[in-house]
Amino acid sequence: MMELGLESLFNLSFVNLAGFIAIAFAILLTAWILKQPRGNKKVSELSDTIYKGAMAFLNSEYKPLSAFVAIMAVILFITPIPNKATLAFISGAFCSALAGNIGMRIATKSNSRAAVAAEKDIGKGLKIGFSSGTVMGMMVVGLALVGLTLLWNFFPDPQIIIGFGFGASSIALFARVGGGIYTKAADMGADLVGKVEEKIPEDDPRNPAVIADNVGDNVGDVAGMGADLFESYAGSIISAIALGFGGIMIASTSITQAEATLYPLLLAAFGVFASIIGTAFVRTGKNPDIGSLHNALNKGVFSSAAIMIIFAYILTDQFLPVIEPFYAVVSGLAAGIAIGLASEYFTENRFKPTQSIAEASQTGPATNIVRGFSVGLSSTLIPVLAVCAAIGLSYHFAGLYGIPIAAVGMLSTLGMTLATDTYGPVNDNAAGIAEMGDMGDEVRTRAEKLDAVGNTTAAIGKGFAIGSAALTSVALFSAYIGTMAEKTGVGMSQFASQFSINEPLVMIGLFLGGLLTFIFSALTMFAVGKGASQMVKEVRRQFKEIPGILKGEEEPDYEKCVEISTNTGLKNMILPGGLAVAVPILIGWLWSPVVLGGVLAGAIVTGLLLAITLANSGGAWDNAKKYIEEGNLGGKGSEAHAAAVTGDTVGDPFKDTSGPSLNILIKLMAMVSLLFVPLFV
Amino acid sequence: MMELGLESLFNLSFVNLAGFIAIAFAILLTAWILKQPRGNKKVSELSDTIYKGAMAFLNSEYKPLSAFVAIMAVILFITPIPNKATLAFISGAFCSALAGNIGMRIATKSNSRAAVAAEKDIGKGLKIGFSSGTVMGMMVVGLALVGLTLLWNFFPDPQIIIGFGFGASSIALFARVGGGIYTKAADMGADLVGKVEEKIPEDDPRNPAVIADNVGDNVGDVAGMGADLFESYAGSIISAIALGFGGIMIASTSITQAEATLYPLLLAAFGVFASIIGTAFVRTGKNPDIGSLHNALNKGVFSSAAIMIIFAYILTDQFLPVIEPFYAVVSGLAAGIAIGLASEYFTENRFKPTQSIAEASQTGPATNIVRGFSVGLSSTLIPVLAVCAAIGLSYHFAGLYGIPIAAVGMLSTLGMTLATDTYGPVNDNAAGIAEMGDMGDEVRTRAEKLDAVGNTTAAIGKGFAIGSAALTSVALFSAYIGTMAEKTGVGMSQFASQFSINEPLVMIGLFLGGLLTFIFSALTMFAVGKGASQMVKEVRRQFKEIPGILKGEEEPDYEKCVEISTNTGLKNMILPGGLAVAVPILIGWLWSPVVLGGVLAGAIVTGLLLAITLANSGGAWDNAKKYIEEGNLGGKGSEAHAAAVTGDTVGDPFKDTSGPSLNILIKLMAMVSLLFVPLFV
Repeated sequence: MMELGLESLFNLSFVNLAGFIAIAFAILLTAWILKQPRGNKKVSELSDTIYKGAMAFLNSEYKPLSAFVAIMAVILFITPIPNKATLAFISGAFCSALAGNIGMRIATKSNSRAAVAAEKDIGKGLKIGFSSGTVMGMMVVGLALVGLTLLWNFFPDPQIIIGFGFGASSIALFARVGGGIYTKAADMGADLVGKVEEKIPEDDPRNPAVIADNVGDNVGDVAGMGADLFESYAGSIISAIALGFGGIMIASTSITQAEATLYPLLLAAFGVFASIIGTAFVRTGKNPDIGSLHNALNKGVFSSAAIMIIFAYILTDQFLPVIEPFYAVVSGLAAGIAIGLASEYFTENRFKPTQSIAEASQTGPATNIVRGFSVGLSSTLIPVLAVCAAIGLSYHFAGLYGIPIAAVGMLSTLGMTLATDTYGPVNDNAAGIAEMGDMGDEVRTRAEKLDAVGNTTAAIGKGFAIGSAALTSVALFSAYIGTMAEKTGVGMSQFASQFSINEPLVMIGLFLGGLLTFIFSALTMFAVGKGASQMVKEVRRQFKEIPGILKGEEEPDYEKCVEISTNTGLKNMILPGGLAVAVPILIGWLWSPVVLGGVLAGAIVTGLLLAITLANSGGAWDNAKKYIEEGNLGGKGSEAHAAAVTGDTVGDPFKDTSGPSLNILIKLMAMVSLLFVPLFV
Repeated sequence: MMELGLESLFNLSFVNLAGFIAIAFAILLTAWILKQPRGNKKVSELSDTIYKGAMAFLNSEYKPLSAFVAIMAVILFITPIPNKATLAFISGAFCSALAGNIGMRIATKSNSRAAVAAEKDIGKGLKIGFSSGTVMGMMVVGLALVGLTLLWNFFPDPQIIIGFGFGASSIALFARVGGGIYTKAADMGADLVGKVEEKIPEDDPRNPAVIADNVGDNVGDVAGMGADLFESYAGSIISAIALGFGGIMIASTSITQAEATLYPLLLAAFGVFASIIGTAFVRTGKNPDIGSLHNALNKGVFSSAAIMIIFAYILTDQFLPVIEPFYAVVSGLAAGIAIGLASEYFTENRFKPTQSIAEASQTGPATNIVRGFSVGLSSTLIPVLAVCAAIGLSYHFAGLYGIPIAAVGMLSTLGMTLATDTYGPVNDNAAGIAEMGDMGDEVRTRAEKLDAVGNTTAAIGKGFAIGSAALTSVALFSAYIGTMAEKTGVGMSQFASQFSINEPLVMIGLFLGGLLTFIFSALTMFAVGKGASQMVKEVRRQFKEIPGILKGEEEPDYEKCVEISTNTGLKNMILPGGLAVAVPILIGWLWSPVVLGGVLAGAIVTGLLLAITLANSGGAWDNAKKYIEEGNLGGKGSEAHAAAVTGDTVGDPFKDTSGPSLNILIKLMAMVSLLFVPLFV
């Protein structure tokens, strides 16, 4: 542990304050949202049903999660890891779960309000959806900053604060995997019987799986995404602290331990202000078209990034003796935006790749799938080059310390980017409620427009999630090897030579790490497929046994479908989640920390590639279908449309379960390895 | 260069002789095959048409290939690589092309003969198909051994003999990619209009793409597979020679340079005899059932492996001062068989994974695809563990030298394994000819049975191809770093430390290498999709403009479809092939040999995982469809069958284009890097 001087404590209080301001901002927005009209009885009830379903899932999820936290706490306590790390672990888990919980509560309280608002003015609908997303974004950054600063204030030791990251990571993994399986089992099941077999529209209240589907948007896309980025955010700051703990030499100037550990926290604090200012730019004129809606959100993202660059320059100039780390921040932010724009290009139907998938649908589902998958594979190009550039540049300017700083830079405006991301599911729900609540075609169309805009901005948000996961894991991985070298007392360069790719043990590790990401994806995808099959059988059964449902005379048994999704999600998150935690610990402890190093590197590289491929092919299939539904190539009901629906359905688990879960897998594995170093040496 | 002593020359002559014996054996079998009856006029003509189409493709392919060889020869000549390597490069390219050419000629001469033979006795059909495969297998090992021994006799310098490997690799890549795109564009195109739209059977002569499809089986599965394994075979021996060139220390005993370089060649020579003996075990009783056919081939594979183990023990015991390298041989052979059996388990419909895909087809194509892809992902488990075990064990017993020795062990019985692999396409063609030539349902059914057995044994063959590609690339990669260290004059351990995965440059390399495999797969898959679309349009056009075709009154324009496949194959092999050669050279030369090291490791790891996933998901989809066609889950014409056909079609480019091309990509990249070391230092 280090002694924190008066100046450090002052700076730490500033960061802490920024965290509380973020939370206060979220509370103010919540109060405003709750004051908006909820809609008529039917609409309010629908919103309540979704709310209850979502909370029911979270509550059931807390049982196995608490058990996991308890078991891990015991393990942490008996292994030679500082005992206070156990406390940090529990706090991290708690903060992550809390952020997800609050974000999801607000999202489910906002959906009907967004639909009602859109009835009068589509711009108002945007505002409610976006505010709801901002609550999530601000809660995530606020809780992370408050948690981290309090811990660092009392226990300024990286080994302890890493526990916080591990707590956040493990909750994130289970939330992402469980929620992802839940939502896509419901979505696929609902579509396969509803849209494909019975030809009833999306979100039709006659579909027994429709509530499960709408609940799924919240537990997967809101709570899952929030936990994911909470982890990235905390993880990037923690890895910067861990790497900066020994003090840093940049451009022949030494940066003190206090400076190197406080700098990432201060960057994050300024990011809160950049995000809050950015939200002010998200405004439209009255009854805007889809282009203006889109521009409004983009303006928010880009202006916070621009403001952040100015803040980061001032901060670096004033706080550090050298300016180089500022360039690392910029390279991270630029990489994030590049990845986001590339995802946009590859997944939106304004552009050629997705249109070509739609065209390939004209020769049936097989060509649609082959084309979509090859688009997904090729979409790795720019993101991977961007990540490599960010690693190379940040290392060039600020050494190994630069890599986590680039990640912190990329995530500094998370309050804003996460808002544009969780905005989507709120309006997706709004569109569903408009349909189910008979609010009329006009409202439905408006809500759908808002949803479409959400899909676009979500691409940028997902780009940040993937890019930051890669950078954060690389940083944590460097911290792992650095800490190992330090604990074994061997010189770093001598130690590093054991990790040469030429060593068969390292090569074996690389293979095993890559393998883990493939098996992990297989498990999650398999779970969705199985859940969807059960859902299909249940929906078919209800249609068959209760003929009144399809005639709209009887209400379907929504509960039963929610139950299937819940059980599938909970049951199938255990094995992949357990693997992610257990494999690194067992390899590092029982076999070799060198093999574990290979495992981490292999998992990071393969995981990034697979995650991008799955996310973007899924997104592109989705939007290719929408392109046809907009009236192109024969429009709804054509052969091409049927083929595109198949692609969209295949894409569901790709983009919303397996793909995003990989982001967390690679971070979690690196985090757990870093935390358990004392056990390995 | 080293001086070869008298004893070495004697041993070399023995290996050379073994090569000639293999070729002689192939010639004898060829003479026997050609003596068999060709069938009636119609059947003979069909066989001729396929033969001409296949040769036409090969001949068109030779133009760009000759241009490539000429350009590379100039580049090799002007770079600081020994000039004799240019000669070796040209020989390697020539031998590889020759082996593919001869194998394909025989395959296209055998197809109608196999069909005619099956008319009388299914066992005779097996014998012709298997003999045809054996010709290919023996030509591959024979030409490789003759070429390598002659070169080594005159120029005993690893740097020169690596040129031979590079020649073989580059031809292999173009043959695999070009042939793979050709065959699957034709296959997908034929199926999409024929089977799906017009509901006419497979291989129906009314389908304009049917000849292109049958030609494709030969240019893709015969010539492509032959070139692929020629490369693996030569590459594994070359990497063993390169790593053994300095002499080796094992178990505190030194193995001389002469011993270490001759041992892999001698192993291969004994493998020829083990394979020839093994072929004698491939026999059946009169009119055997499918189980006996299957057993006959398996007996061949397993008995050659068993004989090889005995030979290897005797050889090692007599020739080397230590026995340890023998264990490396065994670990390689065992890994090959384990991978083969795992592929069988994951892709055959006797087992649960494939049956579960068939079951998932009952809820439509989307669940079929999701299930199939997750089966493919999970099928990486055993092969990757087997490769890791082979690396770990062979390294444990014989150091870095052990890794290529394991690969040589795995491939030593290639004469046999390749025979069982190219047996498949011959009988696939036979079934097609039986259908097109109106030879009657009985013959058709028998030929289909033979084809089905071929699919099974091909799984083992593919397992060897993938496993040996991974081991050979790892060995070549080790040789690359070893040679770099030697040329730069730095000590190996100091040099290796630059290649630590902790170095950002290495990490960037790992990312870029992984990226390359994804982009490469995207390009090949994209090409197949595009070619298939063109084919679909052409077939539809013919059906529309010449209504007599579907009524069976007019002959379709087969030529036009062959032309489309040829052009698609040739045009689209340039970019991926060029990338594979140019990227390593440019990175190593203009940027950094350290980054290149990372690129190789990243490509090997990711390439192996992706190759297995693509190959096995494709195989499993294919057999899931066959499972339904056998009458399960509703049989032909059911909804489940339609869904399974979609999966099968998606699987075409997965298993026969992109997947196998990756095997070559990783070997070629490692080979080209090793060869160009003098340019990099």
